[in-house]
Amino acid sequence: MTKDPLVVFTPSGKRGRFPKGTRVLAAARSLGVDLDSVCGGRGICSKCQITPSYGDFPKHGVTVAKDALSEWNSVEQRYDEKRGLKPGRRLGCQATVQSDIVIDVPPESQVHKQVVRKAASTRQIEMAPATRLYYIEVEEPDMHVPTGDLERIERALETGWGITNVKMNLSVLSKIQRILRKADWKITVAVHKPHNSDQSTIITAFPGLHESGLFGLAIDLGSTTVAAHLTDLATGEVMASSGIMNPQIRFGEDLMSRVSYSMMNEGGDKEMTTAVREAIDTLARELADEAKIDIGQIMEMVFVCNPVMHHLLLGIDPVELGQAPFALATSDSVSINAQELGLTALLPSAQIYVLPCIAGHVGADAAAVALSEEPDKSEDLVLMVDVGTNAEILLGNTTRVLACSSPTGPAFEGAQISSGQRAAPGAIEAIAIDPITKEPRFRVIGCNLWSDHEGFAEATATTGITGICGSGIIEAVAEMRMAGLMDASGLIGSAEQTGTPRCLPDGRTHEYLIFDGTAEGGPRITVTQGDVRAIQLAKSALYAGARLLMDEMEVETVDRVVLAGAFGAHISPKHAMVLGMIPDVSLDKVTSAGNAAGTGARIALCNVDARARIEKLVREITKVETAIEPKFQEHFVAANAIPHKTAPYPELQKVVTLPDVGFGASNSGDGGNRRRRRRG
Amino acid sequence: MTKDPLVVFTPSGKRGRFPKGTRVLAAARSLGVDLDSVCGGRGICSKCQITPSYGDFPKHGVTVAKDALSEWNSVEQRYDEKRGLKPGRRLGCQATVQSDIVIDVPPESQVHKQVVRKAASTRQIEMAPATRLYYIEVEEPDMHVPTGDLERIERALETGWGITNVKMNLSVLSKIQRILRKADWKITVAVHKPHNSDQSTIITAFPGLHESGLFGLAIDLGSTTVAAHLTDLATGEVMASSGIMNPQIRFGEDLMSRVSYSMMNEGGDKEMTTAVREAIDTLARELADEAKIDIGQIMEMVFVCNPVMHHLLLGIDPVELGQAPFALATSDSVSINAQELGLTALLPSAQIYVLPCIAGHVGADAAAVALSEEPDKSEDLVLMVDVGTNAEILLGNTTRVLACSSPTGPAFEGAQISSGQRAAPGAIEAIAIDPITKEPRFRVIGCNLWSDHEGFAEATATTGITGICGSGIIEAVAEMRMAGLMDASGLIGSAEQTGTPRCLPDGRTHEYLIFDGTAEGGPRITVTQGDVRAIQLAKSALYAGARLLMDEMEVETVDRVVLAGAFGAHISPKHAMVLGMIPDVSLDKVTSAGNAAGTGARIALCNVDARARIEKLVREITKVETAIEPKFQEHFVAANAIPHKTAPYPELQKVVTLPDVGFGASNSGDGGNRRRRRRG
Repeated sequence: MTKDPLVVFTPSGKRGRFPKGTRVLAAARSLGVDLDSVCGGRGICSKCQITPSYGDFPKHGVTVAKDALSEWNSVEQRYDEKRGLKPGRRLGCQATVQSDIVIDVPPESQVHKQVVRKAASTRQIEMAPATRLYYIEVEEPDMHVPTGDLERIERALETGWGITNVKMNLSVLSKIQRILRKADWKITVAVHKPHNSDQSTIITAFPGLHESGLFGLAIDLGSTTVAAHLTDLATGEVMASSGIMNPQIRFGEDLMSRVSYSMMNEGGDKEMTTAVREAIDTLARELADEAKIDIGQIMEMVFVCNPVMHHLLLGIDPVELGQAPFALATSDSVSINAQELGLTALLPSAQIYVLPCIAGHVGADAAAVALSEEPDKSEDLVLMVDVGTNAEILLGNTTRVLACSSPTGPAFEGAQISSGQRAAPGAIEAIAIDPITKEPRFRVIGCNLWSDHEGFAEATATTGITGICGSGIIEAVAEMRMAGLMDASGLIGSAEQTGTPRCLPDGRTHEYLIFDGTAEGGPRITVTQGDVRAIQLAKSALYAGARLLMDEMEVETVDRVVLAGAFGAHISPKHAMVLGMIPDVSLDKVTSAGNAAGTGARIALCNVDARARIEKLVREITKVETAIEPKFQEHFVAANAIPHKTAPYPELQKVVTLPDVGFGASNSGDGGNRRRRRRG
Repeated sequence: MTKDPLVVFTPSGKRGRFPKGTRVLAAARSLGVDLDSVCGGRGICSKCQITPSYGDFPKHGVTVAKDALSEWNSVEQRYDEKRGLKPGRRLGCQATVQSDIVIDVPPESQVHKQVVRKAASTRQIEMAPATRLYYIEVEEPDMHVPTGDLERIERALETGWGITNVKMNLSVLSKIQRILRKADWKITVAVHKPHNSDQSTIITAFPGLHESGLFGLAIDLGSTTVAAHLTDLATGEVMASSGIMNPQIRFGEDLMSRVSYSMMNEGGDKEMTTAVREAIDTLARELADEAKIDIGQIMEMVFVCNPVMHHLLLGIDPVELGQAPFALATSDSVSINAQELGLTALLPSAQIYVLPCIAGHVGADAAAVALSEEPDKSEDLVLMVDVGTNAEILLGNTTRVLACSSPTGPAFEGAQISSGQRAAPGAIEAIAIDPITKEPRFRVIGCNLWSDHEGFAEATATTGITGICGSGIIEAVAEMRMAGLMDASGLIGSAEQTGTPRCLPDGRTHEYLIFDGTAEGGPRITVTQGDVRAIQLAKSALYAGARLLMDEMEVETVDRVVLAGAFGAHISPKHAMVLGMIPDVSLDKVTSAGNAAGTGARIALCNVDARARIEKLVREITKVETAIEPKFQEHFVAANAIPHKTAPYPELQKVVTLPDVGFGASNSGDGGNRRRRRRG
């Protein structure tokens, strides 16, 4: 007896012997090869295309004859005529195995395809969407055996696709009879299979064969901005992105003022909940319009956000998050649908997933950073910092991951800075101070030229030069330190002490003049002593948080630092290090992860297994609460000096020499607190 | 070594040996004895009260010493002082076993207590509510181990009660933090454990210990009336009952006219859905007010209804139910919550269960009758008839149950009858015609006197005599047949033929005058030939449906007949039999089940296992579709005669002798169809 033909699939390498006449799709399914199909092998969708290879394959020990697959059949011919098959391609559900064969599954025929991330890093997202399309042919009703249309749909899903335990929202049930009859009992259903339940949900149904067009929204719900990416759930492609202001801003600029608003105003939390849900509806509509899709094609949304935004999104009063012990109503992930969340623009049955929160101050956004940047898979000990009003800090490697939040305040975002402003056109975002002349040059958002280049004035005529944003103030303070305009304690020297008339008296202290636009009716942009103090407080808090995690990990140094967030994308590692925001590390070991939280949201949207993964990691993370760690205060005080009172920063010293200046009463550079300053 | 003490529980008879010092509650749980507890053995609820018995128990082989239980402890003393323990009672969670003991669990300490039905039958409902109260003491939040309040509630439920996989609706989550803190972390949660999923739901939470006060609504959603019973979920007691008109009546009196309304008016189904949901909200509010409970204490609702009401309740266009093949959108039971159903008066998380439908014409109301009357548990072959606009008919015994629906039309409800009216005060509901004098006497709704009794005129002065209701017209036609005023074909004789001036000409036919109130400005109430024809059509349809089921069962007779529904409660078996509405059977074998559908709803509300039971039975029932059975027409025609053209009715003949009269052209009594009548 001769052996059955051998079938080898690439790129997976999976192989097996199958009787002559076996359909390639059946062989693939039997071996667990990732070969897509929406129509279930009826030859009407194009998802299962494969490329047979012919000739000698010593690696596989196979020689493939020209007639190793069956000849084209009428279904393939019709498909090719109507829709066109690429040369060399076959339909896996039609071609049958005749003799030993090597079959390549091209990327577009794989469900679990790899998608290159658009962001800075080249890491890929593996597609494993929770929601997929299934074409079914439903039995017609029979008066002799009366069953409901839903029950016959369930039977078709079980028979054709092995899917059991499916529920259907009333909103879908109310439409299904019409769709079934309009489509002559041939429909495609979008089925959501969650990672945390064995019950699947039919989100919607389309008449006839519907091969593509399922979309999801990955939403980064920030205190200031709500950013959303409309993503194709089959390819992972981002079809449209948009961001709008979080309308809750009218109730309070920062998180704590919104918590206060809720505490002071009965029903205030409900107002904020309504506002943000309306904004999400608006955003969803805008993105659907922009991508020219029907909003009913949005099957899923994934949210990442900090704990206060998390509670307000879910309709929970955030009051407990404003006071110790910062108890979350729920820390686990939340799986609900659009109807439950009170969203009206989407299908009521659209599935919503909110990532878990790590702790009362370390939210689903930090979890998303962990999902995106995977500290738990790093052999190096990596410190990840996502800076906003609070800094979320992760430290870890394959052995253990720690997390904390540190109250940096809004200085890093340009708030509470005398000339500070949001990152918007006209804001100074980069600055350099000549160490000899002490003269500044700078760049503003909206113009690529430096201020000492030709054409700068013309190029900025429209926007003007309006203030200084978060990354600008950090660079300014670091540059002042490098140029010897400010000592290690953070004290700005006088014109005499520094040798530049730009250091001007400001009450009992001094300020450094960057730009004077008053002659043209513009602003006068300076860095005041108060600004420096605000930055010192913020950077000390950030450093102290990181240092606490290092204590807990029992290490003195880290191997690398990842700066996450929009902020991380704009500040230079050198300036951050000069300021002592982050622990000393070789500058080439400081990288930006871009919007890692947003990337984490996209990963959770495109890959349902990632949801289980981040939930497990969040449970395993060691949470450190900075507010109650006695050493936090100690680390905070020591971090007040620039870069640090005691930590040596040897890696920084290799690239930067900081002038040994001192402008206080004593040159000790031990923190320059207000009391000492008044004396000086 | 001496043996451990023997503990015998009554009435269950469960027994086992336990170490000295074992708490009675622990022993009961270990043996699976049904002993209630809300506080989990903390001695603060009174649910686990038991009665120890002392002395000789030869039946159990035990002699119980006076000190077989531990002495009263301080918890029992305090409880007795504050709330009072009945003499002889102990708290099962406090008393410990010292030596052999017999312990009685009184009915009020059992979860699965038996509740006597208030309706005619004495069958009991065993309590096994899906929703129960669990007292838990929740860990306080800890900044060092940050978990959400929900996660700590879940842990308390698992540790204290072994309940896992619990979800909490956002509406509860939004309140839970406040409740926990107000109650110092001691709360009672109402947990719904469904029969068809391993996921439980926390419906609501109460501060502190909350021992009772969970209610449910059993709703019989009829085309005309929506009836609801507010039921205590712990005791099964009906606290309040109320019925209101189904507001959908303004869109159409009967089912088919509502289906037509939906077909003719875009969005008409939505109007009717909104109307009935508002009515349910109103009914829930009224019942809560009447029983003086908070509407937030209503945890569950169970609905029984016909398929059209079912679809309109769920927001599904009933158009498919108006045409062959009468396909239901879903035939399975439906488990949702109040929010999903768009009810606003109740807690959003209140659980709703809609019984399964048997077929496109045989709804959840028929399933409820089956649940209540249990044809599948009958050794006798029982025929069950629930008459409305459609008659739902069940035939079965322990071997097999069959079901069908038969289109009787609304004549049995007094509609399409010349003097017909709804059952309301003033309507003739019973009538007797003297076989000698041919004079009628009657009773009207709202008065217990017969019309020939003294004081009848005064007693009915307020209501008047306004018309004739469903049970009245059936009795009238049957009495006319018995009095020889009408022949077997249904033809009413003339005054000459019958010997009474009450038989008056009416066009080419005759009518029988029951009451003439025209002198006082009242109505003239007659039974016309058209009325008789309408009743003949209705009763033929009913009989033919029953007969079809008997064919399918291959029987010529049934052992007993159960008349269900409000209608069944009012018509007399003898009259129904004279008319030939039901097959011949000994009159004492015809019983009324009262509102069996409503009882079925209450059973499903009080006993979650009953839901699984009826779902299984509905799947197993053989459905017979009268519309496509060729023999239906044959049976229908043969049943046109009164009582029947061919069936002998021997049991009826034992008690009634029908006059052998004939008023047509031929005396054949073979159906008297219109063609023949015109000739006659």
